[in-house]
Amino acid sequence: MADDSGYAVREHHAEPFDLPALVPAAPVPASRYSKGEAVTRLERRILRTILDVLGHPPFAIALWNGEEIRALGTVARSALMIRSRAALYRLCLNPHVFLGELYTRGDIDVRGDLRVFLQDAFRAYETALARRPYLVRLWRERRPRRGSQEASRAHIRHHYDLGDGFYRLWLDHAAMQYTCGYYPRPGMSLEAAQIAKMHHICRKLRLRPGEAVVEAGCGWGGLALFMARTYGVTVTAYNLSKGQIEYARKRAADQGLAERVMFIEDDYRNIRGHYDAFVSVGMLEHVGAAHYRAFGSVIDRCLKDHGRGLIHCIGRNKAYRVNSWVEKRIFPGTYAPTLREIMEVLEPHALSVLDVENLRLHYVRTLGDWLARFEHHAERVGGEHGEEFVRAWRLYLCGSIASFTTGWLQLFQVAFSRPGLNDLPASRAYLYAAAPPRADLGLQ
Amino acid sequence: MADDSGYAVREHHAEPFDLPALVPAAPVPASRYSKGEAVTRLERRILRTILDVLGHPPFAIALWNGEEIRALGTVARSALMIRSRAALYRLCLNPHVFLGELYTRGDIDVRGDLRVFLQDAFRAYETALARRPYLVRLWRERRPRRGSQEASRAHIRHHYDLGDGFYRLWLDHAAMQYTCGYYPRPGMSLEAAQIAKMHHICRKLRLRPGEAVVEAGCGWGGLALFMARTYGVTVTAYNLSKGQIEYARKRAADQGLAERVMFIEDDYRNIRGHYDAFVSVGMLEHVGAAHYRAFGSVIDRCLKDHGRGLIHCIGRNKAYRVNSWVEKRIFPGTYAPTLREIMEVLEPHALSVLDVENLRLHYVRTLGDWLARFEHHAERVGGEHGEEFVRAWRLYLCGSIASFTTGWLQLFQVAFSRPGLNDLPASRAYLYAAAPPRADLGLQ
Repeated sequence: MADDSGYAVREHHAEPFDLPALVPAAPVPASRYSKGEAVTRLERRILRTILDVLGHPPFAIALWNGEEIRALGTVARSALMIRSRAALYRLCLNPHVFLGELYTRGDIDVRGDLRVFLQDAFRAYETALARRPYLVRLWRERRPRRGSQEASRAHIRHHYDLGDGFYRLWLDHAAMQYTCGYYPRPGMSLEAAQIAKMHHICRKLRLRPGEAVVEAGCGWGGLALFMARTYGVTVTAYNLSKGQIEYARKRAADQGLAERVMFIEDDYRNIRGHYDAFVSVGMLEHVGAAHYRAFGSVIDRCLKDHGRGLIHCIGRNKAYRVNSWVEKRIFPGTYAPTLREIMEVLEPHALSVLDVENLRLHYVRTLGDWLARFEHHAERVGGEHGEEFVRAWRLYLCGSIASFTTGWLQLFQVAFSRPGLNDLPASRAYLYAAAPPRADLGLQ
Repeated sequence: MADDSGYAVREHHAEPFDLPALVPAAPVPASRYSKGEAVTRLERRILRTILDVLGHPPFAIALWNGEEIRALGTVARSALMIRSRAALYRLCLNPHVFLGELYTRGDIDVRGDLRVFLQDAFRAYETALARRPYLVRLWRERRPRRGSQEASRAHIRHHYDLGDGFYRLWLDHAAMQYTCGYYPRPGMSLEAAQIAKMHHICRKLRLRPGEAVVEAGCGWGGLALFMARTYGVTVTAYNLSKGQIEYARKRAADQGLAERVMFIEDDYRNIRGHYDAFVSVGMLEHVGAAHYRAFGSVIDRCLKDHGRGLIHCIGRNKAYRVNSWVEKRIFPGTYAPTLREIMEVLEPHALSVLDVENLRLHYVRTLGDWLARFEHHAERVGGEHGEEFVRAWRLYLCGSIASFTTGWLQLFQVAFSRPGLNDLPASRAYLYAAAPPRADLGLQ
């Protein structure tokens, strides 16, 4: 039998993901310890037991009197510095809730690379939960807040109305994308990765010039403007953040796209009209699991017969609440769904999943690029928002890197269409068609 | 901002799927009508009401007295010929259950292309269910049979122990694949498509020479032998069909692969050992929804820490029972899950979905190729198994084509891995890397 399948045997060399090497951060000076109180023998025993339960993790625990404890036979890649007895007890009570608070206030600190420590800590935490199932209940996360229209409005304002200036310091300069970029080739810049992400989405949606697209949750409008400018579509984009909508409208006017991109300050539930394509990037996280059916109804209501759609969101392998501190301080009301939960959006309706891609490691790269820029401007941010703000955001970015690196969090792109759509490509190869770089996009 | 993303603007030309044109089959001679009984006015009214409820479908209904009824203003692309009053009443009572039986026995027939009629009938059926919700309950499918080990054994024997000779007449000659092929380029033969499918799966699994693979449900062993021969892995393959296992072992011996491919006649629940990759093609349909957790536990138990896996199965957009006639006559115990239900296999365990691809239209192509070969040998099959057997299989193949064409059925390939696996490709482009055709595979 001749093989006319067109495949070369065993030639499936996949370009490996070029994850950045982690480098140790500047060590915290030992002089900041308060050496007043002694550590008791009981406390030492408790700490040794904890290190046992954590499966002998590769980090040390440095206490308020300068004493360091580590599991026997381990080499510490980093050290968790606990500055007071009160901090130690709170951490044991519920690390998920208190680690963020304590770190933000400086009651605990990390010597070495914060990302390395958090990866090791997350892995140790999983080991502990697997070995001591009662910890699952003791250390449980808070229930995320409700996603009613009013609550959504408040949550979105909490996060996104911080001011464009802050995000502009560390997001890409191409399209202000506060979502995962796409790094298919080595050495790509954050800007290139965000443009590649937008192309990837537009190709998955198979946008054609003249089509009408609706976007649920449009951020600063970067994707909406890109789709209109680069793929020749008209876009209606919804967002609850007044500041972002104002920014996006200004950009549309600057780029002469005000006629083709309409930015609406409203809830996704109020989307009206009929569209060829539906897209939502980084918004399902804010919808809340209780509202997935409503979200699906909006898609079903607004999508034409030949319509296509794409949901891009942070997800999980198993259902689990978002970290309590992140939910409280950074992203109120947020929830990262499993694929099974995402299907609760689509399956009640006449929608067919065509493609799911997990871009988990691309978020490690994106967050790494954000972190580098954030650290570059840390002094300026501290001057404007205070040192605790800087520490909170540093922990959030490093914690997210650790979550995506260890596989606690996923990034799903789910492409779908109406079920009877037979105008489909013969394969996904067109998503990967080589194309020469262009320099005349005229982006901001 | 220079665009160094490497994308050419709007250049996302996707090769369209080359679905085969449908050609009318030979018309059934009118002389086979029994013109004895008259059609009553009430029956005519019932039929007109039915055509209304069906949304004026583009087919006529030809009755036992030669009379033809069609919806006003429609052009009939085909005609359903009902040969007796009893057949009409049964069909109205439950088309899902009785269409298969009546067609098999020749109590109803179709003039024109059977695939065209079935597509139109399926679409009309959906319209009717949407317009008259009570029909959902009246026309409901039977509950599929249980998937206990004993029942599974009997079900598999029912279908696969029909004899290799029968399947060999119309399956591909490359690897006897009784599952969906992959047709990424125009003009591919069935053989090329099945080889392309196996390459696609091996690439998604990123098999490396020397790795150990376990296959749950291996059919005639085509994929197991291909993986060992072409990707240099060792394979342990499970199947409940004695006939298929014997065939596969003989092929392994013929190809000198008996040392590297072990075929085991046993249930998937009895899989033992630890493997680098798990693969199951066209078996989840036979597992039964009640056993998805058990199926997931088998995967979890046998997959190493860096392990990858792939499930390839027929699925649905919405949960719905399999056609009662197919479940009774062709595939006992079968069930086509939604993606949400497939996640019930994976989410309870430490497994992470990397990629889902819907190959629905590829099954239309595959079934079309099977049907053409089946029809080529129809006389011979009829001589061996009888005319009703030929009609049953023709209906099954054409009904499947209609199901995948209209979007009632999907074909999902779900690729997954252990959650912490960071040795991942930077994109899926490697799946589509161009490669010159080779002619020295030495397939049967």
